[in-house]
Amino acid sequence: MSNRDKRVAVLSPVAWRTPPRHYGAWETVAGNIAEGLVARGWDVTLFATRDSITSAKLHAVIDKGYDEDSAVDPKVAEYLHISEAFEHASEFDLIHSHYDFMALSYSRLVRTPVLTTIHGFSSPKIMPVYQKYRDGYYVSISDADRSPELAYLATVYNGIDLSLYPFQERAGDDLVFLGRIHPDKGVHLAIEAARLSGRRLIIAGIVQDEAYFHNRIEPHLDGRTVNYIGPVDVAGKNELFAAANVLLQLNTIPERFGLVLAEANAAGVPVIAMDLGSCREVIMDEQTGFLVNNVDQAVQALGRLSEIDRQNCRRRVETCFSIDTMVSAYEQVYAEIFELEEKKRQK
Amino acid sequence: MSNRDKRVAVLSPVAWRTPPRHYGAWETVAGNIAEGLVARGWDVTLFATRDSITSAKLHAVIDKGYDEDSAVDPKVAEYLHISEAFEHASEFDLIHSHYDFMALSYSRLVRTPVLTTIHGFSSPKIMPVYQKYRDGYYVSISDADRSPELAYLATVYNGIDLSLYPFQERAGDDLVFLGRIHPDKGVHLAIEAARLSGRRLIIAGIVQDEAYFHNRIEPHLDGRTVNYIGPVDVAGKNELFAAANVLLQLNTIPERFGLVLAEANAAGVPVIAMDLGSCREVIMDEQTGFLVNNVDQAVQALGRLSEIDRQNCRRRVETCFSIDTMVSAYEQVYAEIFELEEKKRQK
Repeated sequence: MSNRDKRVAVLSPVAWRTPPRHYGAWETVAGNIAEGLVARGWDVTLFATRDSITSAKLHAVIDKGYDEDSAVDPKVAEYLHISEAFEHASEFDLIHSHYDFMALSYSRLVRTPVLTTIHGFSSPKIMPVYQKYRDGYYVSISDADRSPELAYLATVYNGIDLSLYPFQERAGDDLVFLGRIHPDKGVHLAIEAARLSGRRLIIAGIVQDEAYFHNRIEPHLDGRTVNYIGPVDVAGKNELFAAANVLLQLNTIPERFGLVLAEANAAGVPVIAMDLGSCREVIMDEQTGFLVNNVDQAVQALGRLSEIDRQNCRRRVETCFSIDTMVSAYEQVYAEIFELEEKKRQK
Repeated sequence: MSNRDKRVAVLSPVAWRTPPRHYGAWETVAGNIAEGLVARGWDVTLFATRDSITSAKLHAVIDKGYDEDSAVDPKVAEYLHISEAFEHASEFDLIHSHYDFMALSYSRLVRTPVLTTIHGFSSPKIMPVYQKYRDGYYVSISDADRSPELAYLATVYNGIDLSLYPFQERAGDDLVFLGRIHPDKGVHLAIEAARLSGRRLIIAGIVQDEAYFHNRIEPHLDGRTVNYIGPVDVAGKNELFAAANVLLQLNTIPERFGLVLAEANAAGVPVIAMDLGSCREVIMDEQTGFLVNNVDQAVQALGRLSEIDRQNCRRRVETCFSIDTMVSAYEQVYAEIFELEEKKRQK
């Protein structure tokens, strides 16, 4: 049974443009879902910033992402943007929300079912909202990032646009860190691994924790062995992957998904990741990289990179983390929701 | 025509308890409206923190004000609290919101009409929300605090509970400042007026701007001529009014209403206020205090305080700024809304 005559609203965050220029995992995934659904013939409306780029119909009330436009108050942008989608709820058969706990607070005021992909629990303080709306429809982005208090319809792994990250035959020489500059991401551990192995490290990403950058990262930037190149767009990522021998993701807290791990693998770059959270779901140990528990193990793994088949990395992403795989999984989730809703109506 | 069989939801903020322990003008007014409506026989439900004190039915999902409880995330509290009221909208004939722009974003998702008392525009950045919902029902708390972009049903002045602020026959000796310690409130100008007049000043209120307090206020605290006594509750305010010769409100930006001006007048204390915003609506120049344009004029006015009849100050509050006066005015506004809604239904 095809549901592709159904109308779906995809509610993307408005912190950044969809897709984002550099950082912005939630907007990336929401945008990819919209693209994938359109490609399969669904009637899709993307609620996102006005400068967003999409094959879906774009519905926008916020000009630019509030993290890209100081004239916009984030709180105001969120209230205006989220409520706009719910005010148009009757035009849709499903609202697929990527807007965290805030969108839930509107869900009982409309008849349209709301599916929430939970991209992460930012704080225990947001849990009361999920507790109240625990009868909602939820998808987790990894088995690791589930709350025991919620019932989920499925885990659907994030899918990336593989055409953006072409396979690179030849491995580069450098260690690469790509992500938010924040202690959670273990940039300092990547630096330590570089120092212990005597290898060169390139760091890219937005600085999210200024003090951490200033105290723990900047003192090591010598322009030779440790370099920081700032945030990068897709072209910049591909340059980075070309230079990469490996991506180091020595996160210090459980990863929720780790989009960059899949992006690196897509380009053929193996990943050494801390075995915390979702990393073991995204990286197959000894197949597409290595899972480690500390910096020493990461350094040991650096010596074993020749064991990794770069083609294998690419294939794994094609199979598990493509837009197509993700959207197929969401189509199943949508079908389940439509059935459940139909049963409710018949009661 | 009485509407007192109608069911009204009063949506109070959850920054503080309703009524607040010390600071919290919005919660004070929302609480007073609920009390006044109940006294007149209305069926009133107050949406406020669980520790609130009210004669109305209390509906609460947030235990304590987020400014009184660090375990609570303000954003989470607001989303949970506001949506709760709207989820119960069908139980009410009117939602009377004191919750700023946020509540508006739910207003089109329910059939119940929503009246918003605008307690102030905190920033030009919130105006897009009012622009979107400019067809809503609005009340201003002073003629001065109106946006030219909005249509208002009325200005309804804030009403205070006169029983809390008994008239004090005899004037005290001190100059008194009572309010948030913030440059907007001109605490530094009150200090200058005290210095120029050689009079003693008592300062009371919460410190909202730490740097301002540290740099501009603290250096003057000598324990003799300038004293800071911290935040005060109602009993503390009455002690302050007993010691007061005058209340100094040398605000540097337009006042929106100035609840404390009415409270001081209720106790018989004249007010010297900067002639900015609503001050000339609350204080009658040369009758219940003096309106001034600078510190020099404030100092001159200090020499004319004997001209003010303290009984007159009290009478003015009884007439214009009592709960009864306020609730009468709101009853008229409600009646107008019910009529307008009835006309809409008949169309």
